[in-house]
Amino acid sequence: MDTSFSTREQPRLLKELTEFLSIPSISALPAHAEDCRRAANWLIQDLRRLGCPVVDLIEGRGHPVVWAESPPVPGAPTLLIYGHYDVQPVDPVSDWLSPPFEATVRDGKLFARGTADDKGQVFCLLRAYEAIRDAKGRPPLNVHFLFEGEEECGGHVLDDLIAAQPERVKADAALVCDMSYYAPGIPAVYTALRGMCYAEITVRTLQRDLHSGTYGGVAPNAIETLVRLLADLKDENGKINIPKLYKSVIPPSKAELKDWERLPFRKREYLREEVTATALTGLKKYSVFERTWALPTFEIHGIRGGFVGEGAKTVIPATATAKVSLRLVPGLPFAQVAKWLERAARSAAPKHAKVEVTILHGGDPVQVDVDHPAFAVLDAAFEEVAGKRAVRVRAGGSIPIIPRLGAMGAPVLLTGIGLPDDGLHSPNEKLDLKQLWEGINVFGRFMERFAATGR
Amino acid sequence: MDTSFSTREQPRLLKELTEFLSIPSISALPAHAEDCRRAANWLIQDLRRLGCPVVDLIEGRGHPVVWAESPPVPGAPTLLIYGHYDVQPVDPVSDWLSPPFEATVRDGKLFARGTADDKGQVFCLLRAYEAIRDAKGRPPLNVHFLFEGEEECGGHVLDDLIAAQPERVKADAALVCDMSYYAPGIPAVYTALRGMCYAEITVRTLQRDLHSGTYGGVAPNAIETLVRLLADLKDENGKINIPKLYKSVIPPSKAELKDWERLPFRKREYLREEVTATALTGLKKYSVFERTWALPTFEIHGIRGGFVGEGAKTVIPATATAKVSLRLVPGLPFAQVAKWLERAARSAAPKHAKVEVTILHGGDPVQVDVDHPAFAVLDAAFEEVAGKRAVRVRAGGSIPIIPRLGAMGAPVLLTGIGLPDDGLHSPNEKLDLKQLWEGINVFGRFMERFAATGR
Repeated sequence: MDTSFSTREQPRLLKELTEFLSIPSISALPAHAEDCRRAANWLIQDLRRLGCPVVDLIEGRGHPVVWAESPPVPGAPTLLIYGHYDVQPVDPVSDWLSPPFEATVRDGKLFARGTADDKGQVFCLLRAYEAIRDAKGRPPLNVHFLFEGEEECGGHVLDDLIAAQPERVKADAALVCDMSYYAPGIPAVYTALRGMCYAEITVRTLQRDLHSGTYGGVAPNAIETLVRLLADLKDENGKINIPKLYKSVIPPSKAELKDWERLPFRKREYLREEVTATALTGLKKYSVFERTWALPTFEIHGIRGGFVGEGAKTVIPATATAKVSLRLVPGLPFAQVAKWLERAARSAAPKHAKVEVTILHGGDPVQVDVDHPAFAVLDAAFEEVAGKRAVRVRAGGSIPIIPRLGAMGAPVLLTGIGLPDDGLHSPNEKLDLKQLWEGINVFGRFMERFAATGR
Repeated sequence: MDTSFSTREQPRLLKELTEFLSIPSISALPAHAEDCRRAANWLIQDLRRLGCPVVDLIEGRGHPVVWAESPPVPGAPTLLIYGHYDVQPVDPVSDWLSPPFEATVRDGKLFARGTADDKGQVFCLLRAYEAIRDAKGRPPLNVHFLFEGEEECGGHVLDDLIAAQPERVKADAALVCDMSYYAPGIPAVYTALRGMCYAEITVRTLQRDLHSGTYGGVAPNAIETLVRLLADLKDENGKINIPKLYKSVIPPSKAELKDWERLPFRKREYLREEVTATALTGLKKYSVFERTWALPTFEIHGIRGGFVGEGAKTVIPATATAKVSLRLVPGLPFAQVAKWLERAARSAAPKHAKVEVTILHGGDPVQVDVDHPAFAVLDAAFEEVAGKRAVRVRAGGSIPIIPRLGAMGAPVLLTGIGLPDDGLHSPNEKLDLKQLWEGINVFGRFMERFAATGR
């Protein structure tokens, strides 16, 4: 493969990606629904320009799915490419050094919401396809593009689509580029993803807010009840207080644990540069890899109650709400954990409090069988372009659709071009441009090699 | 005294009060600073119309103070009238049945923010003065009016004024009408007020928000740290976990406790209609009166952290904030408790968390000497107009300026025309119009009788 494409076309590619990134397609915020549609349409236009004879905007009860098929190549294998065009919210927006939707290059890095998660990586695959098509004069394999707009918010459109038309995800391999290198210079493929159970917990203790002067001392305070409930759900040592949870976990194999022990890991740098804290928390007797890849977590993502304006208001709040999630590992199916969480939250509250637990979304944990030959093809592409095979790791995150992609039996190649310090979901999210150009070459080379494997 | 004034003038009075209530003078919200000034000016105009020869708008570092002096009556006693024109915020505004700044009569009650706390009561005193002046042809005593705009937000203007010009609060008695009847038909004077220590607690655990997929399990979560800290500061039985706090409390006298035992109290109705909860909380071995009048409290007024928009965001928040207060009783001076709170909050957090405690405002607890003859005059006025002397009770609330008003030795008559279900600081705050008309007569009669006592 001619790797000059990514070098030659850099100014144009940067311009195009900047345009894609400028669309604030925040799927979790209803006010941005139209922007999600604009991002989907940006992809539609791009796929048409790339010469795909089938390009569809598929509607559902949420943000649309983008589907495209490259010109058919009879006898060649079919690669399913999955990605998402939606992005996380940007608050606190004041922490951004440059506006989140005006992509800005600083120090060889492109800063904007979605650069790494996942617009930049979707763009990387589109241009890898373009590069190989241009190099060959025509695409050497069948590529099916499947891009959703609800990965960050737990929507239903893609799920509904696959349930109704499972043949959409029929392929010889699925390539999902939504992850990162293990470290600079060390590409990775992912053998497991944690699942997710996301819920909102609302506590009500009074019919109306009260004056703390008059009723302070006797009136049940909803925030107080909520904070006690949350503090009860996880103890100060990081142990989640949900019966049966840990007993149900299927631990990693000895071989896998041994692999992890061999991974380079510098705890001080990890703590200071990635976690940006002065101490790690969680179950101390497990390694950082086990804690982030192989154990469930309970996190409080947001909390709100009472008076939060400037100044002082002496109210006893009647109600308070928190957003929480559990990350799930093998042995912990979403539906089961959702029930446990509801029960645990209710039993952590006193009888006089009304507790509502609303499950907002979730997904099962995933394990990927990495023995399929397609992984050797990906390894070879990384080795050729990046000089190193991909290490086998797990991911702590969740991509809800992954179990569905693998349901038809195709191997799911879960990888990516990000770096661990990209700041996903945080202010100043970035993508190293070096990674982008390298990624275009890696995945172009992968497509070329994969095409040669035949069906 | 001719009590026909309040009957005859009802339509005009209602119109004037509605106008005063229409000004959203929310002192805690900087966006309403101009509205506070408008409310002060409304009083200035009203006091001029009432014929006061001295009417001043006194500026300071906050919302202005209104000062007025009635035409001098040599040899007659001087009554200092204190009140406040500022009001509490109105959120959640969706819970109001009618707009908070459009006074609306329903069922003989006037609904609007500030009806009971304290604009309606300030208005009551102004019209009582007008009534007695009209009835006599001229005011029979010297009245000094002192109205502030920072009672609800802990400002400095009035404090600074009294510190610089203590003679402002020199009087034969101070009348503060910011309280309520003990129950319908049972007027009350207040023998003590709780003090206050209001603080904002901010926790930071990370330099930036993180993705819970990548770092969930090891990264310290600021909300989790804050909720644990708050849960630690008060246990589930209502005991505040601040060393020395309870040991420093000066308990009420046996006589006072006996007085309280004689007060009519229907716990079921109190719980259902006032507290609007299904159970009372707090230190079970003390009576409701002791818990709300004679013991310190710790309340969480507001909490905010992480993602609180619609939908789901899987962030590990770097920072979280809560607004809290302690109500203070005799034996617990504000400055001392502020130090204790800071220390307790810091020691309740793990070392890796950065805890900031900002004291927003506070005031010492107050005890009033109710043996002064002015109390007998007030009792007589209540007995004459309302048919009943005032019972002696305490108040759980705080009026920060009260200790300063009494500093020159004058008795502070702390009373009011509200009812316990007025919904102070809550949506649908109201004032029973019957109470307003009765109050005008009571305080008119009080001024008349007080004038007759000479100096």
